[in-house]
Order: sequence, then structure tokens, then C-alpha cells
Amino acid sequence: MQRPRAGSFHQDAESDSDFSVSMLLKFCEEDRSYWEECYNKVSKTAEEYKREIEDLKAKNSFLRLWIQTDHNGLDGPGFSDVVLFAAKDGPNGGLSKPVPAHKAVLASRSPVFKAMLEHEMEESRSNNIKINEVSYDALRAFVNYLYSAEAFLDERMAYDLLVLAEKYQVQHLKDYCEKFLVSKLNWENSIINYAFAHRHNAKHLLEAALSIILVNKDKLKNHRDYSELVKSDPCLLVEIYEACLAKQEKHCSTGSC
Amino acid sequence: MQRPRAGSFHQDAESDSDFSVSMLLKFCEEDRSYWEECYNKVSKTAEEYKREIEDLKAKNSFLRLWIQTDHNGLDGPGFSDVVLFAAKDGPNGGLSKPVPAHKAVLASRSPVFKAMLEHEMEESRSNNIKINEVSYDALRAFVNYLYSAEAFLDERMAYDLLVLAEKYQVQHLKDYCEKFLVSKLNWENSIINYAFAHRHNAKHLLEAALSIILVNKDKLKNHRDYSELVKSDPCLLVEIYEACLAKQEKHCSTGSC
Repeated sequence: MQRPRAGSFHQDAESDSDFSVSMLLKFCEEDRSYWEECYNKVSKTAEEYKREIEDLKAKNSFLRLWIQTDHNGLDGPGFSDVVLFAAKDGPNGGLSKPVPAHKAVLASRSPVFKAMLEHEMEESRSNNIKINEVSYDALRAFVNYLYSAEAFLDERMAYDLLVLAEKYQVQHLKDYCEKFLVSKLNWENSIINYAFAHRHNAKHLLEAALSIILVNKDKLKNHRDYSELVKSDPCLLVEIYEACLAKQEKHCSTGSC
Repeated sequence: MQRPRAGSFHQDAESDSDFSVSMLLKFCEEDRSYWEECYNKVSKTAEEYKREIEDLKAKNSFLRLWIQTDHNGLDGPGFSDVVLFAAKDGPNGGLSKPVPAHKAVLASRSPVFKAMLEHEMEESRSNNIKINEVSYDALRAFVNYLYSAEAFLDERMAYDLLVLAEKYQVQHLKDYCEKFLVSKLNWENSIINYAFAHRHNAKHLLEAALSIILVNKDKLKNHRDYSELVKSDPCLLVEIYEACLAKQEKHCSTGSC
């Protein structure tokens, strides 16, 4: 539908005293009808989207796999054929409680697990998978995500799960954690997040953290994590400074500096 | 936002020649603004829904389990621990080719499979499940749906899958098949669908078929499936006639007959 040119018409009406009120009303009606029709059309689309969301949610709920656990967290999903252990917080640095799972699910969600389980490796022979440098809680949350596509995140858990998602190439979980961490970004945690994102190949988080750093580049040297980064990873700081310069150059090349 | 009462204002404007054009323009602007604001609001909602749909689709895609099959359909999902057979179209009335699956998936999707596999039954001991009165193709499609929540339906397949969904209490698949069959309903197939829905406890399909029959009740006796139904299931016809009478009574009680 063509939108009436309301502005020019209104000007004509005000400057020409002979302008007929009934014609003006007709025009107003057309103008209003245009917006009403637009509204009705987009309302219909929104209703269709709403129905699609309901269908997708039902599908989602159907596709999740149930996980049974007892109070000690010792039981896992029924008919499991593989057990995972966290190798970080067990007694005396040993293995954690077992986290039962299914090879089919692990292999379906992660190409790394798939390769590990389909080939003649220690894990596929013993049906035990040891996951290093992770807490039992993070491992549980990780396995749970593979079955349900859901996780309750705080920042610590988001970092832990992102590391696991990167290591086992579970892109959906990685995106989920990155989105959460981006939503928690601020000037105070920007350098630590930049360093973390760089280490674990988290591009969205890296870009978002860099944007915040660039906006605040004048006070970069005074940031509480700056001196620590100089010691631990000066190359990363070089990268940040290079990005600052590149941005400045781009800014100047458009004649804005 | 309160919508301006355009109608009454327009009447005033037309009947009162002194009515100021500038006031009229002001009013028209308010009226238009109201609809524009409504449009912008619902557009924003539609955009949010669209993003939610994308997220849910990605989640669904993540939650689906992959199924590997070779050209003979002999291979199934990796690491399977149970095999299903169709007992209808095998050679000499025997069993069909095997359809491999996972106990965890079957038990997660169907309370009937769950009970069967968790208890000391023949199926849980032998890891073989025989499904009677079903074709190999329908069984494959059924198992595939349990892994992916997707099926390519024609009417024959929808009937077959609905029967399996009812038998194994897979509500999501049952809803999916009913929706498809309702979309294919017409006067010609209404009686056969009514009978089918009655046999397999498919309420939505039953109601939709009955509605079509009731609208055409005057020509019911001449329907091509009528005489067949008199012979095969006269009680069902009695039910249809009772529904017709009940509808007529309801119609009359509102003073409309």
C-alpha cells in the first residue's frame, strides 16, 4: 500500500484557506488507514511467529533427553555405556565422582568425542573418559548441556563451559557462553575477558571486549589488570595497541580526526 | 496510549464550518501517530519473536541426534544397543531388516519403551524389539522421528505413524500426524477419518472429521463409505447420528431453529 504524502498535503491545507475540510478529512482517513493496515499486517506476522515459537518449544522439549540423578549425583541417564570423570577436584588430586553418559549422545554433539569413541583409543576400550582441568560441577553441567541444550550460568561457570565447549568443539554451547559473557562485559572486566577470549578463540567475546577497551583507550594504562598483563602476556597488549592504532587510522582516513 | 476518538471528531468538523483547519490537522496527526506507535510497537515484538525463532531452531538442530545409514539401510545410529524389527513385510511373513536404535532414546521418548526396557522383559534381555502390524518403512520413519522430531508425511505414512505414536505414547508425533491429517480432511474422506480417529483415540482428528460430517449431514446416507460403515461398525454411525441430534438440540435451545 502506498503511503499518502501527509506532510505536503498538510502544508497545502494550512496555506490555502479555501481548502475543503471534507477533502482534508478524506486525506486524514487515508493516512490513518495506511498505518492501521501496516499495523494489522505486522500483527498477523507476529501472531504467526508466536505460533511457530510454541511449536519449536514443544519440539525442543521432545528432543531433550531425560537425565535421572540421585541425591549423590551418582546415577545418570539410564542405559549409559560410558562414564566421564573430572580430573581436578577429586580426593588427593584423583578422579571425581563418575558422570554417566551415552556414547551416541557424546559423539552426536562433539566431533572430538566422536573421533575418540569411534577409534581404538583408550577411552573407547575402557568406556571411561577423563577430563582434565575441570571441576566435577562444570563437567556435570557440560554433560547436562549435551542432553538438554540448557545450563544455569554464572560468570565462573560460563568460563568453564566455554573452555570445554572449545576443547570438544560444541559450537552451540560456545555461542551460549559467549553471549552470556558479552552481556556481563564492562570496563573493569574487559582486559581479563579479552585475554580469556584470545586464549580460547572466542571471537564474539574478543571483539566485544576490544570495543570497550578502544572506547576507553586513554585510561588503558591505569586499568587494574594492565600491569599484570604486561608481565603475563605482553604480546596481547601489543595486539590491543595495534588495534587502537588501526582504529585511529581508519577514523582519520575518513577525515574525522 | 489512548486512541483519539476520530469518528466523533470528524463529524464535528464536518458539521461546524468554523472548525479550525489547524485543530483538525492536529487531531489527524494524533490519530495517525496513534497507529504509527502501535505499528512500531508490534514490529519490535515481531523482531524479537524472529530472533527467538532463530535461537530455537539452532537449539533444535543441536538436540537432534545424527543417524548414519548405508544404502541398504542396514546401519543405524552409532553405538546402538537395541534393534527393532517390523513384523509385517519381512520375507514369508517373518521379520524385516533391523532398525538399530538406543535404549536411552527409546525410553526417553516413549513411556511404553521405557517400561519395556527397564524391566525384565524379553525385549530388555534380547535387545530385540519386534513391532507387529507395521511396514519396515513406517518403522524406520518412526524411529527417525524419535531422534529428529521430523518426518516426511503423506496420508498413508501419517496413518501408520499415528498408530505407532498412539501405541507407544509418543504424544509429539501423534499431534504432528493429527495436524497433517486434519489439513487433508474433506467430505469424501471424512467418514473414514472419523472411524480411524475413533479407533486410535485421535481427538482433534475426530472432532474435525465430525464437524465436516455434521455440516453435510443431509447427504450422509449417500456417502460412498456409508454402507461399508453400516456393516463394519454400526455403533460408530449411531455415535455420528447422536452427535447430529445433540448439535440440533443445542441449536434449537438457543432459539435458532
